[in-house]
Amino acid sequence: MKIKIYTTGGTIDKIYFDQKSEFQVGEPQIAEVLREANITFEFEVESIMRKDSLEMTDADRQLIAEKIRNDLADRIILTHGTDTMVETARALVGIQGKTIVLTGSMQPARLRISDAIFNIGYAVAAAQMMGPGIYVAMNGQVFDPLHARKNVACHRFEVI
Amino acid sequence: MKIKIYTTGGTIDKIYFDQKSEFQVGEPQIAEVLREANITFEFEVESIMRKDSLEMTDADRQLIAEKIRNDLADRIILTHGTDTMVETARALVGIQGKTIVLTGSMQPARLRISDAIFNIGYAVAAAQMMGPGIYVAMNGQVFDPLHARKNVACHRFEVI
Amino acid sequence: MKIKIYTTGGTIDKIYFDQKSEFQVGEPQIAEVLREANITFEFEVESIMRKDSLEMTDADRQLIAEKIRNDLADRIILTHGTDTMVETARALVGIQGKTIVLTGSMQPARLRISDAIFNIGYAVAAAQMMGPGIYVAMNGQVFDPLHARKNVACHRFEVI
Amino acid sequence: MKIKIYTTGGTIDKIYFDQKSEFQVGEPQIAEVLREANITFEFEVESIMRKDSLEMTDADRQLIAEKIRNDLADRIILTHGTDTMVETARALVGIQGKTIVLTGSMQPARLRISDAIFNIGYAVAAAQMMGPGIYVAMNGQVFDPLHARKNVACHRFEVI
Repeated sequence: MKIKIYTTGGTIDKIYFDQKSEFQVGEPQIAEVLREANITFEFEVESIMRKDSLEMTDADRQLIAEKIRNDLADRIILTHGTDTMVETARALVGIQGKTIVLTGSMQPARLRISDAIFNIGYAVAAAQMMGPGIYVAMNGQVFDPLHARKNVACHRFEVI
Repeated sequence: MKIKIYTTGGTIDKIYFDQKSEFQVGEPQIAEVLREANITFEFEVESIMRKDSLEMTDADRQLIAEKIRNDLADRIILTHGTDTMVETARALVGIQGKTIVLTGSMQPARLRISDAIFNIGYAVAAAQMMGPGIYVAMNGQVFDPLHARKNVACHRFEVI
Repeated sequence: MKIKIYTTGGTIDKIYFDQKSEFQVGEPQIAEVLREANITFEFEVESIMRKDSLEMTDADRQLIAEKIRNDLADRIILTHGTDTMVETARALVGIQGKTIVLTGSMQPARLRISDAIFNIGYAVAAAQMMGPGIYVAMNGQVFDPLHARKNVACHRFEVI
Repeated sequence: MKIKIYTTGGTIDKIYFDQKSEFQVGEPQIAEVLREANITFEFEVESIMRKDSLEMTDADRQLIAEKIRNDLADRIILTHGTDTMVETARALVGIQGKTIVLTGSMQPARLRISDAIFNIGYAVAAAQMMGPGIYVAMNGQVFDPLHARKNVACHRFEVI
């Protein structure tokens, strides 16, 4: 069962650029995480954009939806910044016949302590095991995007 | 949906004891991994034993089966050494009405690079999403213990 | 031989704030690094400010110089951002009878891969072993601040 | 100022072999640590043996002494297991005109939390800054091997 992984940027892919004295979205980290986890399922990674999710526009979301709708794969992971992850997930509602799992992290994958690796493990299982639908996978739970939000103050997603 | 986590030792829990100049099974690492991943589901950890899985006996497996059979929880993760994980999983076949996921890791959780955190993320999702049954969750896949084995030379589990 | 450690911020202390979607200078990391390294010498950490070194002013440098000049300790480490580390070191030239070592890092100490821990180990030895003077300790070398600069493009300090 | 680095094994180089379910001395880790620390001084690494230091014999120590005595370099780091580090250092006493620094670690370099990186940073500075002599560099201090011992119970070196 092959998984197609689309990346859009977000905290999970942030690396530190010394020259600019700041963290910015860098190369997608997920392939490295999967390699270190010694996984054996088939997957393919494609980077759609490298954005902080606060900067994501409606046109970006249309592009993402189009990419996923036209993809032959029916098991899809989308890595995404957490701030507008729910919004993008909602823009995907209506795509039929595919299991689409959005995940990301509150701390960059390259940090010594981060939620990124756990979240990727969780999202891989969700992409394999859940039926068709659009899911937000964060904090060890899977959320329906129509009834979820990020609680910024508490660093976690919750049901609304 | 609460998850009950039983730990039995194995590589995932190995820490380095300088005084003995060797790695030995230490405190269960899974609660720390879940805390770092900032998870929000309910869980409970109980250590049954701290063994290298090569030293696990039939009596140990009976004890594990009894613990799980008598547990009120129906979503269970069992962390276990990889060498006899399949054997223990087979000893649990027959327990009805519970989703039981065995996982562990090839490299200790405390290493800078390890499959442990990914595997725990994957196992949590499997425990939540799979129907009743006994599953071995390793290398980003879920295996039926009656048709799985560890390929020692290749550091991975495979279907038989 | 006690070492007094002053911290001023810089990349070494940057942590990721999810709420602001950016890395900012956080708590000083050096005490944690020393604890993990299991060191046994006596030390004391005092935070003077938490600044990106590009934002450091002449008034800040005067404050730092005054703090160090008035300190009874004669073995001093100053953690500092790399961009203006040389400039601050030059502002300390003239302080007599003390071994003053400035260090920092190109990557935050909390990253899985960073130069921070090595640099702290190196700076501790330099503070203990060098005679009185002002030194910049980076890239496994000790520089005279009057003949050093940061080569931004190459991510390293060099002699001028 | 070039540093010649000899490695002999010990905890610092231990990696986990899943096939054997144990940690054993693997490839020397120091070059990787120096690379990650982005150092710019010249160095050369040579592996003499890969032993747990408890298994080191008088013949091994003679070989190490001979290697170092005949080396043209006068700045030398020797990575070594901690259990008999002092004994090997004593076997080097008498070598003239060289600064020889022995170091190692209580926890393998590949662990997420280890004293290895700090100790290497400290040893590099000691090899550059100390005058001729034989030194044991551990716990952020430099010891005279004739007046040092490892306190096994306390996980640290101390003066005797």
